[in-house]
Amino acid sequence: MKAAVWYAAHDVRVEARTPPAQPADDEVTVRVRWCGICGTDIHEYRMGPQVIPVAPHPLTGASGPQVLGHEFAGDVVEVGSGVSEWAPGDRVAVMPLIYCGRCYYCRRGQQHMCEILACCGLSWRWGGMAEYVIVKAYQLNRLPDNVSYEQGALAEPAAVACYAIERSGMRGGDTVLVAGAGPIGCLTMLAAQAAGAAAVYVSEPAPARRQFAESLGATAVFDPLAVDLPAIVHAQTGGIGVDVAFECVGLERSLRDCTAALRKQGTLAQTGLFVAPATVEPFLWSLRDLTIVGTWCYHVYDLPRVLALVAAGKLPVERVITDHIGLDDVVQGGFKPLVAGKHVKILVGVD
Amino acid sequence: MKAAVWYAAHDVRVEARTPPAQPADDEVTVRVRWCGICGTDIHEYRMGPQVIPVAPHPLTGASGPQVLGHEFAGDVVEVGSGVSEWAPGDRVAVMPLIYCGRCYYCRRGQQHMCEILACCGLSWRWGGMAEYVIVKAYQLNRLPDNVSYEQGALAEPAAVACYAIERSGMRGGDTVLVAGAGPIGCLTMLAAQAAGAAAVYVSEPAPARRQFAESLGATAVFDPLAVDLPAIVHAQTGGIGVDVAFECVGLERSLRDCTAALRKQGTLAQTGLFVAPATVEPFLWSLRDLTIVGTWCYHVYDLPRVLALVAAGKLPVERVITDHIGLDDVVQGGFKPLVAGKHVKILVGVD
Repeated sequence: MKAAVWYAAHDVRVEARTPPAQPADDEVTVRVRWCGICGTDIHEYRMGPQVIPVAPHPLTGASGPQVLGHEFAGDVVEVGSGVSEWAPGDRVAVMPLIYCGRCYYCRRGQQHMCEILACCGLSWRWGGMAEYVIVKAYQLNRLPDNVSYEQGALAEPAAVACYAIERSGMRGGDTVLVAGAGPIGCLTMLAAQAAGAAAVYVSEPAPARRQFAESLGATAVFDPLAVDLPAIVHAQTGGIGVDVAFECVGLERSLRDCTAALRKQGTLAQTGLFVAPATVEPFLWSLRDLTIVGTWCYHVYDLPRVLALVAAGKLPVERVITDHIGLDDVVQGGFKPLVAGKHVKILVGVD
Repeated sequence: MKAAVWYAAHDVRVEARTPPAQPADDEVTVRVRWCGICGTDIHEYRMGPQVIPVAPHPLTGASGPQVLGHEFAGDVVEVGSGVSEWAPGDRVAVMPLIYCGRCYYCRRGQQHMCEILACCGLSWRWGGMAEYVIVKAYQLNRLPDNVSYEQGALAEPAAVACYAIERSGMRGGDTVLVAGAGPIGCLTMLAAQAAGAAAVYVSEPAPARRQFAESLGATAVFDPLAVDLPAIVHAQTGGIGVDVAFECVGLERSLRDCTAALRKQGTLAQTGLFVAPATVEPFLWSLRDLTIVGTWCYHVYDLPRVLALVAAGKLPVERVITDHIGLDDVVQGGFKPLVAGKHVKILVGVD
């Protein structure tokens, strides 16, 4: 079978791989239909290994070269002997996290905090950018009949956005700032709208992405490099500031803008992953009684909620797709334009 | 009457002042018995004006020279014509915040976030380090019969600690780290114990304060400059980390230690006031799904709760007192030893 395999930074190869054999008792084999390229994949492509293990992963034993892909949907084609709840032909979206089930966090229903968390397409011997992938049965989530494979492939990043909404405590009627109109920023904007935000302001320096955010229904979009973002946000909110800010960039300046744009007792959700330290003013956290929440992935049981919102037409995840490509084209048509900031979400079709 | 008056950094004078005349309709006159010296007073003494306004305060019109003192208890001696709920002889602790009652925050019951917040002893024409003080009737809180004036004077800083507990979401059975064994750190330790903490670890570099924290019942005390604090805290908590950390220092290193000592999904309460920026690693907020809450003062309606805990013997606030002095001695016996880090809480007696 064909698979996109990460070997090293700037070295992702589409090559022939032996398809998986019979899945183990608690596993299933999925025929992939569509797989998204994630910011994490871009990080691995540009400067990996970041998440891909250099030594055998303590839970899965995986290490590079790694088949990429953790945002995907497809059809079940084979099930392990201990799997009774799934059958060949089932249409599924895959929750890519793999957890030990035994540690402090797993026992508390916080499996995404697992001490030895692994992820399909990053630290598992299979990935979604391939014709076939083996996953644990617990990773499967049924696609509602009116939800497409493309939408299903977007359920995972949409779950990241929905989890940020949950962690932030955002309520209906809140005003919201989203910093960054990349895939997670755009999905967070859609998720905030689905959760009843009264206004969603978007900050994004790239003109094309600003325009894209506007087309998705942003209340207003701003270039944070050209305007005084906190001042504009305060002006838009009657001098108060937004109730919730989602930092979906991972840069100091953006963090500072988000902090300053909040009302007193507002909440900042840190969704963007920083790759460098940042200098901040903790005095403002105290003075303004702010709350900051880090957000990591999603609950492992979140995908059905996300898929239900998609099925209900309340979370049009497919609107963040800016291109469809084939697996053979994943580097030239996927990683390279994404690194250049020319797209939001590119889906890879696996036929 | 005698009063301790701030003129400038390192210039606090005990001098004669004209006692207040008849209180206004909504005000009362209180004869002060005991008044605590707060960290904010020390900041004003060392490097003020910090909070003391240099121009007339927008709500109260006050500006320096300023009678200090915002942690005090005493007796009502006179009430304004519109005050029916208080009478001369009432024993009271004073909640020092003064608010507009009209702004976005005041209307939401978040008066401590008032857009033009003022504070008795900092931005109000009177202060608690004087024989008499005029305050608004809404600032009074009745002392239960078995609560002393000294305990009453500690209700305000204890409210800061209790509010930090509330903001942190600490629950009974949680493990807690308190960084800093100054007055707020010690009161936070007592408040965490009152709220049912399973263990309260205290980090403090000064040997005398470490010993003091131990005498107050800390589960264990550590010198953060001599040990790897996060490693020790993880070892004490079965490799997990504490549920909640209270940063009561306001220094980058302490913030870093607190962050690293938390379990995943733990909460850091930022109570210490930073006077400088700090460099942090927001990646850890995301990776570990942390929550950070700034904590500013307390709800203006919190003192009765605090006094009830004191009356019930569950919050022995008087245990943080390390000296009693007279008003004449406030600089030599109060500010100077406090700046030198030789005490936790000094109460000033006003006779």
